[in-house]
Amino acid sequence: MQFSAAQIALLINGKIEGDANAAVGSFGKIEVAGAGQLAFLANPKYEEHLYTTGASVVIVNETLELKQPVKSTLIRVADAYSAFASLLTKYQEIEAQQLSGIQEPSYIATTATIGEKVFIGAFAYVGEGVVLGNNVKIHPQVYLGKNVRIGDNTILHPGVKIYHDCVIGKNVTIHAGTVIGGDGFGFAPQADGTFQKVPQIGNVEIEDFVEIGVNAAIDRATMGSTIIRKGAKLDNLIQVAHNVDVGHHTVIAAQAGISGSTRIGNGVMIGGQAGIVGHLQIADGAKINAQSGVTKSIKSPGGAVTGTPAYDYTSALRSQAISRNLPEMEKRLKELEEQIRQLLAEKV
Amino acid sequence: MQFSAAQIALLINGKIEGDANAAVGSFGKIEVAGAGQLAFLANPKYEEHLYTTGASVVIVNETLELKQPVKSTLIRVADAYSAFASLLTKYQEIEAQQLSGIQEPSYIATTATIGEKVFIGAFAYVGEGVVLGNNVKIHPQVYLGKNVRIGDNTILHPGVKIYHDCVIGKNVTIHAGTVIGGDGFGFAPQADGTFQKVPQIGNVEIEDFVEIGVNAAIDRATMGSTIIRKGAKLDNLIQVAHNVDVGHHTVIAAQAGISGSTRIGNGVMIGGQAGIVGHLQIADGAKINAQSGVTKSIKSPGGAVTGTPAYDYTSALRSQAISRNLPEMEKRLKELEEQIRQLLAEKV
Amino acid sequence: MQFSAAQIALLINGKIEGDANAAVGSFGKIEVAGAGQLAFLANPKYEEHLYTTGASVVIVNETLELKQPVKSTLIRVADAYSAFASLLTKYQEIEAQQLSGIQEPSYIATTATIGEKVFIGAFAYVGEGVVLGNNVKIHPQVYLGKNVRIGDNTILHPGVKIYHDCVIGKNVTIHAGTVIGGDGFGFAPQADGTFQKVPQIGNVEIEDFVEIGVNAAIDRATMGSTIIRKGAKLDNLIQVAHNVDVGHHTVIAAQAGISGSTRIGNGVMIGGQAGIVGHLQIADGAKINAQSGVTKSIKSPGGAVTGTPAYDYTSALRSQAISRNLPEMEKRLKELEEQIRQLLAEKV
Repeated sequence: MQFSAAQIALLINGKIEGDANAAVGSFGKIEVAGAGQLAFLANPKYEEHLYTTGASVVIVNETLELKQPVKSTLIRVADAYSAFASLLTKYQEIEAQQLSGIQEPSYIATTATIGEKVFIGAFAYVGEGVVLGNNVKIHPQVYLGKNVRIGDNTILHPGVKIYHDCVIGKNVTIHAGTVIGGDGFGFAPQADGTFQKVPQIGNVEIEDFVEIGVNAAIDRATMGSTIIRKGAKLDNLIQVAHNVDVGHHTVIAAQAGISGSTRIGNGVMIGGQAGIVGHLQIADGAKINAQSGVTKSIKSPGGAVTGTPAYDYTSALRSQAISRNLPEMEKRLKELEEQIRQLLAEKV
Repeated sequence: MQFSAAQIALLINGKIEGDANAAVGSFGKIEVAGAGQLAFLANPKYEEHLYTTGASVVIVNETLELKQPVKSTLIRVADAYSAFASLLTKYQEIEAQQLSGIQEPSYIATTATIGEKVFIGAFAYVGEGVVLGNNVKIHPQVYLGKNVRIGDNTILHPGVKIYHDCVIGKNVTIHAGTVIGGDGFGFAPQADGTFQKVPQIGNVEIEDFVEIGVNAAIDRATMGSTIIRKGAKLDNLIQVAHNVDVGHHTVIAAQAGISGSTRIGNGVMIGGQAGIVGHLQIADGAKINAQSGVTKSIKSPGGAVTGTPAYDYTSALRSQAISRNLPEMEKRLKELEEQIRQLLAEKV
Repeated sequence: MQFSAAQIALLINGKIEGDANAAVGSFGKIEVAGAGQLAFLANPKYEEHLYTTGASVVIVNETLELKQPVKSTLIRVADAYSAFASLLTKYQEIEAQQLSGIQEPSYIATTATIGEKVFIGAFAYVGEGVVLGNNVKIHPQVYLGKNVRIGDNTILHPGVKIYHDCVIGKNVTIHAGTVIGGDGFGFAPQADGTFQKVPQIGNVEIEDFVEIGVNAAIDRATMGSTIIRKGAKLDNLIQVAHNVDVGHHTVIAAQAGISGSTRIGNGVMIGGQAGIVGHLQIADGAKINAQSGVTKSIKSPGGAVTGTPAYDYTSALRSQAISRNLPEMEKRLKELEEQIRQLLAEKV
């Protein structure tokens, strides 16, 4: 697709300086972009590149004062970065929406219901009773088990696997290799040392506008539902156990893990590789530092913790700092002991 | 499938109160179950729901004393939860066994041997010389490399990948996206800073009744076998390196990792995100706390450890508690130093 | 394939003792190998097996002095282990190169360019504009998005997914289930508590001779490239975030995670389950211990760190050792306090 500077200015409500007919077909970083590319300049640190860039069009902040002549067409907006990002988003949406039709071979059960403008890639498996909304994009090699429901505009990247009876909302994006609805890890220990599997007959419900990264695992509930609420964002390789409830607009970084039945509030931030034990309550807006091991509920909204076992962020940092000086502290203690020993000896 | 209260009572050795012909076709939680559903009540905390539930049949403990009239048919058993769980297990087994036949398109090498009542889903790949026992269920998009052997009644969920020459026992369940038999991570450093790959020509052997979660990685041995023994249960996203030996009925929680050649005993419990370095011995019944980093063998059976590096659980908890008070301890130390300084000064 | 002792001796520059016509067709460990198998003896600890092994041919060190008669044909070389490993490597390369042709059904876009002696397995997806070099092996169920380029001799194991526009070098090996080029985790917080996705329009570039394990996640750059440089080796379940740059011949163990825009130098060693926060610089040759949480750049080449937050390896070990004795230290402090209290009391 080719766009003129004038068309772009219209989309982002910008003011053109230079050739309004300059045409671009792709995006580039300002320092390497060439003819036919669109770049942006937000950080004044990179201003020098504006005077040498080969980009045909550059989006800049309206407050920018030029120090040298510029060859590119400029589009001035209130916030160059956010204008550029929203353009990119629109571009990707348009591109995604162009995908439609059914590639062969794919497997679509006769009892499945398929909305309009749906894309189903080659080697995708759409099971019995599956319902796909409008504009759903099922990439190659995706698996949808019996009775899975997928809302409008949702994108499932290659190789996503969704077990039977799970429900995915609208405008959800799930990245390649992620598995939704595997059995929760429930085994009842028996007297003879073996385990009896606890059947996992619940499902997973993922609400609208959720995004989940690559190769993550969201287990189905034992009974009821494991829930990922509206607008939550989960990174790669994350573990969400059975019956967990993740609040809306909560963000979870890569490789974090949440154990069974824990309820995470809204707007919580969970750092990478953090772990949370089962059956806890994490208050709204809590901040859990990377690699923390949370063993107790966080009750106060916005509470921040770090460490394993995790506790109050500020106290923990202070203790961590002192713990680095333990050899020094040990030395001071020895000196005191020696001094006291002498004082006591002198008394005799 | 529909079952009458009488049929269910027979299966779980229960005593009926109410309409023995009440029919159910699915399971539900007592607080939300409706007509045609089977629920259970085990925890007295939820007894109130028994008097309002819409469930047609409810399994209860034989000791339960009713405080109000009940509309549902009751089935009294010694242990309501375990009766319900065993019913569910039977139900899922029946459902799984109904799956059979070969979906198209799938790829089955002419040299593969296929048992009776086998299911092979669409887009599954069954390589040269593969042997599938009876009742094996190979879900869509599974890959079985050359000479893989799969025992009777084993279920491989969608997208499982098993490299050549690996051996999977009977009644094993492996969840979606898990990879069995990838190359162990072996690279010999060379004088010039590069690495020579150490070929990994062993395999993986998984014994009977093992269950492995979603997106896990069990690497093949350099030579010989990486072994997961009878009845072990592994959760999602677990790493098991080359030549590891996991004992029977050992349980490993999500995102834990075990480095090369380590031998884990029988009945060991390994918490989530724990890591164990290579070439260790972990005694039978050992307990490794979540997020621990185990750097030494655990020699005493039943030994419990926590922390990184991990050591004795009780001592570690005590040290962790004190380490939280380090700022306080540091203050006390300073006070002592000041007092001693004064005492010494006074002496002069 | 069958080889005679004479052929093998020629390949590894060895000297035969015994029957030069002894034939072998597979490899075995010396303690269990049987007729028709090739074994090696490198570690003198296992010498006893040399006198009882059933292996037809055994590779040994040239310095070995026999203490008993041996039935197997021996091949003496300078370094038995490395000779055996290089034989295995050659064997696996020959085997891999025998794979060629296109299995059906597979999906190959008409605009894709396919080199010579390429293998494309069943259910593999080769998108628009993809370029495959010579001898490339695309195993079953692999996905290659639009414009992906794969260099000569590269092997993609079953189920690997590579998103559009990523570039993979020559002689690269990527194991099953790994996803290259998923979206970086970028979401700009909005005033109303929601998040706006930051489009990820860069790609991933993987240079020659890289090997990546099972079920790993290497995200595409926001703009520009996430880069894994020549000869780097990454283990299973690793997370590499957007815009990370991993230096050449760096080794990363399983389940480690690297956050966005961090630059890892050359020849760095990163232990299992370690985490590195974003926007750091890790100097060449740095050593990051398993489970460390690196929160600051490592500036000195070869610097070693451990702990969370990570700091100098040697100091950290010392502090960790003392922290185990905290209960003891606390007791000593109490005693001192009591003694001082008495001294002060006596003064009055």
